[in-house]
Amino acid sequence: MQRLLTSVKRVLQVKKAMQEASLSPASLLPGAHQRFSTVPAVPLAKTDTWPENVGILALEVYFPAQYVDQTDLEKYNNVEAGRYTVGLGQTHMGFCSVQEDINSLCLTVVQQLMERTQLPWDSVGRLEVGTETIIDKSKAVKTVLMELFQDSGNTDIEGIDTTNACYGGTASLFNAANWVESSSWDGRYAMVVCGDIAVYPSGNARPTGGAGAVAMLVGPKAPLALERAGIDRPFTLDDLQFMIFHTPFCKMVQKSLARLMFNDFLSASSNTKTSLYKGLEDFRGLKLEDTYTNKDLDKALQKASLDMFNKKTKASLYLSTHNGNTYTSSLYGCLASLLSQHSVQDLAGSRIGAFSYGSGLAASFFSFRVSQDASPGSPLEKLVSSVSDLPKRLASRKRMSPEEFTEIMDQREQFYHKVNFSPPGDISSLFPGTWYLEQVDELHRRKYARRPV
Amino acid sequence: MQRLLTSVKRVLQVKKAMQEASLSPASLLPGAHQRFSTVPAVPLAKTDTWPENVGILALEVYFPAQYVDQTDLEKYNNVEAGRYTVGLGQTHMGFCSVQEDINSLCLTVVQQLMERTQLPWDSVGRLEVGTETIIDKSKAVKTVLMELFQDSGNTDIEGIDTTNACYGGTASLFNAANWVESSSWDGRYAMVVCGDIAVYPSGNARPTGGAGAVAMLVGPKAPLALERAGIDRPFTLDDLQFMIFHTPFCKMVQKSLARLMFNDFLSASSNTKTSLYKGLEDFRGLKLEDTYTNKDLDKALQKASLDMFNKKTKASLYLSTHNGNTYTSSLYGCLASLLSQHSVQDLAGSRIGAFSYGSGLAASFFSFRVSQDASPGSPLEKLVSSVSDLPKRLASRKRMSPEEFTEIMDQREQFYHKVNFSPPGDISSLFPGTWYLEQVDELHRRKYARRPV
Repeated sequence: MQRLLTSVKRVLQVKKAMQEASLSPASLLPGAHQRFSTVPAVPLAKTDTWPENVGILALEVYFPAQYVDQTDLEKYNNVEAGRYTVGLGQTHMGFCSVQEDINSLCLTVVQQLMERTQLPWDSVGRLEVGTETIIDKSKAVKTVLMELFQDSGNTDIEGIDTTNACYGGTASLFNAANWVESSSWDGRYAMVVCGDIAVYPSGNARPTGGAGAVAMLVGPKAPLALERAGIDRPFTLDDLQFMIFHTPFCKMVQKSLARLMFNDFLSASSNTKTSLYKGLEDFRGLKLEDTYTNKDLDKALQKASLDMFNKKTKASLYLSTHNGNTYTSSLYGCLASLLSQHSVQDLAGSRIGAFSYGSGLAASFFSFRVSQDASPGSPLEKLVSSVSDLPKRLASRKRMSPEEFTEIMDQREQFYHKVNFSPPGDISSLFPGTWYLEQVDELHRRKYARRPV
Repeated sequence: MQRLLTSVKRVLQVKKAMQEASLSPASLLPGAHQRFSTVPAVPLAKTDTWPENVGILALEVYFPAQYVDQTDLEKYNNVEAGRYTVGLGQTHMGFCSVQEDINSLCLTVVQQLMERTQLPWDSVGRLEVGTETIIDKSKAVKTVLMELFQDSGNTDIEGIDTTNACYGGTASLFNAANWVESSSWDGRYAMVVCGDIAVYPSGNARPTGGAGAVAMLVGPKAPLALERAGIDRPFTLDDLQFMIFHTPFCKMVQKSLARLMFNDFLSASSNTKTSLYKGLEDFRGLKLEDTYTNKDLDKALQKASLDMFNKKTKASLYLSTHNGNTYTSSLYGCLASLLSQHSVQDLAGSRIGAFSYGSGLAASFFSFRVSQDASPGSPLEKLVSSVSDLPKRLASRKRMSPEEFTEIMDQREQFYHKVNFSPPGDISSLFPGTWYLEQVDELHRRKYARRPV
């Protein structure tokens, strides 16, 4: 905390971090995944102005090891085939047993990120959690995550939790980037954690659930830099090589991209309109408020935007399609999916548009500039490689029947306010290296343990 | 949101703000209090480095219009005289009826700040709320506050809510300052809002309750600047002209200052020790862990530090003594109290140390540098004048009996999860200009109204 009157403690810590980084990387915990360092392990030099290209250096996704198939759910719920898989665009839904809660999800994803990047635990100077899965109205998830840093002696980490529906992840990311650009920055990395457990009552909304978490390392010289400057004209989709959205369900995203195209159509010159936006001419004169519910426009827009959707957005929906909604981390799961589905060469130099939304409401439309350097060993190549195992990891999950899924959802409800218990279930059903809830005591204190890697 | 690809909307808004500021200040709502502008109404020019002296430009405190006297509570609870008033250092405790909740408290304090400063509503570009009084686990208080900005058309305001026990106000303040120093800053002011309703079950903890909220305007050229640089040696209390603390109850603060002095004693040279820290020599060899519970040391420390407490800290406890604990806003109520109890000349050029703490835990020790300019009309003089009515406002509250207080606390519990009701009570018991809860409908939606000024 740069605003401390005395910085002696920090100087000592940074020295320690530098020593550890150069002398003993092998002392770090072994990682569950491919091992390499995406980012330089030595803390960065502090300057008195904004450092360059502040953004995302590393990114880690966690999802539960079990899912329910949406075609199974369609049958179980006695709805027509395709209601969930086509109508919502959802094929599988991840879910947690009572053994997992928002704290365990975040513990797991932070540990994964630290192990994959092989960073010393005291190279993190800020940690902020965005979530709307609230166990405790007062205690932050961040304070639980501090347990991971305990052995390193790193108790000097700024940041707490932030909340507004699904917007918390983006708020945390912006706060982290602002910190790096401010005089408060102490030269260390910021870590942004977001995650949620989305459960709906049985019925129409239930198949739009999901569960997961994302951790991101934020600092300068990032392969995914948050763009600072606007452009001096209204932007169109042509300015974006890729476009990702907060994803309650995938079909909504396809409609959102179509809507952006409609905006482009309305503001384009007459010549452009006819040539580029085929089939939309009939809807030119509609009042804005009438466009929201017009089904003919809806169809025409989806048709007109299909190529663009396939090119700019579809790949970003890989995780959402297979795992469902994860609220605050949904957008960043889309970012991970996009990186996992494109080559480094395709991504290099591109601009990724991002729309984040939280009910209530708070929303931001912003963009990442992907670095130009696609060479092997470049920060971009390392970042992209680190998420390349996403499809394989999703495919390794266990398929559960709708009956088992329903029983576990009922269990979650039953245990929600319970104290003095150990969650039922077999820890071997979790991915290796997963943190889980071991016990809740009579004072509601939660104790966590980790399944060995 | 500077990270938007197109900034056209903002440019239009800033233009509008500038026009309103220069052309029609009279169109703003009339204020309940003394009217003057503490801060320039025109948005500030954006630079590509950190602006100077980012900190607090204006500050507003709200507390409920009713209180219970702690001597009455001592009798009512059958405890010895002085248990609360001397033992805790608390003389009065403010409390809310069912008519007030965390949203109404924050609505009131934001409206007060905007009216007192006479700023246009679209001069605010960031609004963040720190609280641990959670009505809704997902929706931010900030989104409720956006209703105040609706008429101005200012929908472009960054920030959501932040939570970790009593630390949320400080996290919001740091986030706001970081934003102003970052590339995300759009040249407008940040507003930090913190507040809580502290209610304990009947018994020993109950007299440590309270209720209130603070709003702060954050920007460059502030009379209370957040200090950026540390000093290159361990600081002592001599480096601080004033010292304020998070205040669960006032006696704890007196002990905290005493503990800081003990730290100074331990690290001072032998000569200094004997001359400055009288009566502490006997405790020089104690193990650190034994010092926490040693009652003789406690007494000796309080005696040795009494002059320093009276000089540097006591004035900051005015609001806490008379209103009680307000969690996230406690420290900033202390800041307001300090400003209200000292002359501009006393304050000018001083350094105010601040210790913020939230259970769980998160804590920061930081400092404000007060501007040198104490001349009439200076930003500092305006800020100090704006809080000078604090004692008068506290004195104007209504004294309620312990029986009435207890009945209202029971009512709050009874209505906590209720829907479809209008809170009982007379709005004339609120201060003029106070927002209050008018209705909660069957879907838990809360509707607010304002008592006329």
